[in-house]
Amino acid sequence: MMTTLAVDCMGGDHGVSVTLPAIAAFLRKDRESVVIAVGLADAFEPAMPSLLKEFGDRLRVQFASEVVGMSESVATALRLKKDSSMRVAIDLVKSGTSVAAVSAGNTGALMAISRFVLKTIEGVDRPAICTVLPTQAGRTYVLDLGANIDCSSEHLMQFGVMGAMLASALEHKERPTVGLLNVGEEEVKGNDVVKRAAELLRQSGLNFYGNVEGNDIYKGTTDVVVCDGFVGNITLKASEGLAQFIGGTLKEAFSRNPLTKLAALIALPVLRDFKEKFDHRRYNGACLLGLRGVVVKSHGSADIFAFSCALERAAEAARQSLPEQIALRMAQLPVMSALCD
Amino acid sequence: MMTTLAVDCMGGDHGVSVTLPAIAAFLRKDRESVVIAVGLADAFEPAMPSLLKEFGDRLRVQFASEVVGMSESVATALRLKKDSSMRVAIDLVKSGTSVAAVSAGNTGALMAISRFVLKTIEGVDRPAICTVLPTQAGRTYVLDLGANIDCSSEHLMQFGVMGAMLASALEHKERPTVGLLNVGEEEVKGNDVVKRAAELLRQSGLNFYGNVEGNDIYKGTTDVVVCDGFVGNITLKASEGLAQFIGGTLKEAFSRNPLTKLAALIALPVLRDFKEKFDHRRYNGACLLGLRGVVVKSHGSADIFAFSCALERAAEAARQSLPEQIALRMAQLPVMSALCD
Repeated sequence: MMTTLAVDCMGGDHGVSVTLPAIAAFLRKDRESVVIAVGLADAFEPAMPSLLKEFGDRLRVQFASEVVGMSESVATALRLKKDSSMRVAIDLVKSGTSVAAVSAGNTGALMAISRFVLKTIEGVDRPAICTVLPTQAGRTYVLDLGANIDCSSEHLMQFGVMGAMLASALEHKERPTVGLLNVGEEEVKGNDVVKRAAELLRQSGLNFYGNVEGNDIYKGTTDVVVCDGFVGNITLKASEGLAQFIGGTLKEAFSRNPLTKLAALIALPVLRDFKEKFDHRRYNGACLLGLRGVVVKSHGSADIFAFSCALERAAEAARQSLPEQIALRMAQLPVMSALCD
Repeated sequence: MMTTLAVDCMGGDHGVSVTLPAIAAFLRKDRESVVIAVGLADAFEPAMPSLLKEFGDRLRVQFASEVVGMSESVATALRLKKDSSMRVAIDLVKSGTSVAAVSAGNTGALMAISRFVLKTIEGVDRPAICTVLPTQAGRTYVLDLGANIDCSSEHLMQFGVMGAMLASALEHKERPTVGLLNVGEEEVKGNDVVKRAAELLRQSGLNFYGNVEGNDIYKGTTDVVVCDGFVGNITLKASEGLAQFIGGTLKEAFSRNPLTKLAALIALPVLRDFKEKFDHRRYNGACLLGLRGVVVKSHGSADIFAFSCALERAAEAARQSLPEQIALRMAQLPVMSALCD
């Protein structure tokens, strides 16, 4: 069976100049997928005809009459732009025409529209944003990254369930380990919300490792790391900043003078391998979890390769029936209402 | 006038094998300082006699009969070990015999004993731990790093004052900029505690920049970054983990085969410069701020060079009368009781 993705082609910093070539690259690689490209009719000219010719019925076009701006308010996007490319893409998931939506647009708007149109899975109070990071041990899924600033213990426990199902779907691990981000490994550490979340996670039936610390993220101590959106957002952005700082310093060190440039030339294969390992583009595509449908958010600044990675992630999550897996798992939780009293 | 430091020689993973050579290195470099080495009599044999000979009256010895273990409970350290090397060092600050104490011991115990013995500065509700980090723009001071897991807006504002005074003392900047760590730059971002802290910081008379995001830490957007101890601890540890991951990967890439090893040899001067820039040992020595005395915490795993850096930081903070500067600034704040109602 083919996997059909609805792609908002207008979102992100570069719009169709990135999304269309990325869709083409994705369709060339993944022969089991169909893409519905959603966008303004004008924007699809002049590239679309040749793409339609190349991919035949694996590429379809759905027009929209509006675009959600990158800094547009969530309220405007949700209430006043009912024919935006973002909204139309999500509507296609709602109607069952496609199984996943991908957008590089405004995160707040994407979350709000997804939640409004698709609704949350039974038992999920709040959807969360989850990304995958490279670690010493492989890959780790971290959530929430900013959708939920204030979280209760129950929310954190639900993030654990959703993150575990995502890691399971994309890494094909049967019982991924889940860690709770805290200031120490001991059970007495942290605030009341985190301590209670640890209790709930222990009773959840998940493969709960216990508390993990900041450095455990990049050690890859667990497959999933759970935190509230305030901590997750700041930690991830600090990491991005540090990686840029280190990378920039290394580049600068190698371009200082003719001698260091020569050294760089000789070290080129090593530096290239190194760069590839930390290439954030490969990790592009954060999942909006807890919704009745797969929604993947690409970085706004994604280039063609990065956006195609987000498309691959969405297709895989859809093939693994991620929302259904989360729903199933939520239903199997011990009677949470009793626990939460 | 000489600056006298009381040094707990027993703390940290390596005890006197690190602390004594570090003291010697520090005293050789800083001729305006005196060190009172505090430790068990046995531990000072056999190295001490030759050191005493070398430094004359610039090195003194104060015996203690106990040691606070690295994983000892705060309660035990505080109540039952009144003659520990850590406690004796802090008592020397209290009595005015020395102007600063330095320890690589148990952080929780050091904070509890310092607070109990020295007391907090008028207007400071809670002492905080502050470290300095290398950034694209120079150096940034970040606090709190874990002393305070739950913080009110008033606490965050006070951290701003203390951090600014530290940056001012150690970087000799008259009006260091202060940023409040948040999930976005806009005033509407974040939870209520952070929003209210921004208000208080705006009224504080500090050079308040506004909200900063995680990546601003390493950009060096502001001289000081304020956050609660939960976020600070996790962000710092995640950064440490990422730096280790990147450094380890780079090292591994260069030692893969004879060809890459040759490349490393040619690139050696560049790699050495790069490594030095990110040498965390140079940034060793976190300040416990808000106390009536200078207390500096070294990493437990510090080596000789790292521990000597912590000693330098303590001497400089003491020379700049850091506690007095903080007290002065706290007294100048607008009537906070009115603001806090």
